[in-house]
Amino acid sequence: MPDCCENNQSIQLQRLSKLWQINMGFFHYLVFLIALLFFATVEVNSHGVPIVRNINELAQDSYGIPGLSHITVAGSVLHGFKEVEVWLETFAPGAATPIHRHSCEEVFVVLKGTGTLYLASNSDPKHPGSPQEFPILSNSTFHIPVNDVHQALQADKEGMTQRKVVRKDNK
Amino acid sequence: MPDCCENNQSIQLQRLSKLWQINMGFFHYLVFLIALLFFATVEVNSHGVPIVRNINELAQDSYGIPGLSHITVAGSVLHGFKEVEVWLETFAPGAATPIHRHSCEEVFVVLKGTGTLYLASNSDPKHPGSPQEFPILSNSTFHIPVNDVHQALQADKEGMTQRKVVRKDNK
Repeated sequence: MPDCCENNQSIQLQRLSKLWQINMGFFHYLVFLIALLFFATVEVNSHGVPIVRNINELAQDSYGIPGLSHITVAGSVLHGFKEVEVWLETFAPGAATPIHRHSCEEVFVVLKGTGTLYLASNSDPKHPGSPQEFPILSNSTFHIPVNDVHQALQADKEGMTQRKVVRKDNK
Repeated sequence: MPDCCENNQSIQLQRLSKLWQINMGFFHYLVFLIALLFFATVEVNSHGVPIVRNINELAQDSYGIPGLSHITVAGSVLHGFKEVEVWLETFAPGAATPIHRHSCEEVFVVLKGTGTLYLASNSDPKHPGSPQEFPILSNSTFHIPVNDVHQALQADKEGMTQRKVVRKDNK
C-alpha cells in the first residue's frame, strides 16, 4: 500500500482477520471505466506537477491486492503535496483492503457500488478492539478516525465501488 | 464561505476581479441530482457524527453565491475533523467562486461538466500576481497551492460541474 498506509498487523489483528474472512465471498466482476478524453493543460506548479491533469491518464496500481485499482490523484511522494492525499480506488466484487490502521484521518466517498466496512472504533494503539460491521452504499461517505483498525470489503454482486480516499500524510 | 475560505480580497484583487468578470457569461441551467436512497447506518463516532452518512441527506447552502450548491461532506466545524475537509460543490452555468486565497492546500476533482480556473500561481502574500486561465473538463483534477490567488468559473453551456474540494483546515 502506498505512502502512509503500511500494514501494522499484529498477532491480534491476524486473529481478527481470520474472523472477518468468514464474511468474504466471491462475486461476478463488472468493472466500470470512465472513458472521457480531453487535452490536459500542461502548465506546471513549482514542483513540476501540471496544475490540471486528466484522471484517466494517471497511473494505476494494485499494490498486490487482487481486484484493486488504485490511482493516486494527489500524493505527497508522487506530487509533493504537504497536507492532503487524494486517491481514487476501484474494488472488484470480493476485493478488500487489508486490516490496518494509521495515524491520520481518512474520509471515503463512495461514488458507485456497495460494500462493507469493518471498524474497531474503540481501538487504541495496543488493542485493536472489537470490529463493527457497517453496510456501505452508493453516494455515501464514511470516515476512519485516527488509529482505528479497519477493513473495507467490496461485496457487491453486480457492480463495483469507486472510493475517493482523502487523508493527510503524516510521514 | 465556510470555515477557512473567507475572502481576503485586497484592492489589487478587486482590480483583478473586474478584469476576470469580462470573461463571465450566462448559460442555461441543467442541474444534476443523484437520487439514490438508502438507510444510513446510525453508529456515531466520539464526536457524535455517524460513521456512515448518506450524502443526499446532508445540508446544502449557497453562501450567497448565485448558482452554487455547497455540501460539507466532512468539516472541521460541523463534524469535528482535525486534518481534512471534504466538500461537494455544484455550480450552475455561469456561477463562479469569489477571487480568493487561503493558507491551505486544495485539491479539486471535477466529476461532471466544464469550467475555467483562473490562477495567479506566482502570487505571494502581498501581491496577487498575474492570473493564468486553465480550461477544466470532466474527470479532471486540479490543485491550488497554498496562498495562490484563484477563482473557479463555471461556464458550461449544457451541464454543470460537481467538484469535490479537499482541504486542510488551518484555523
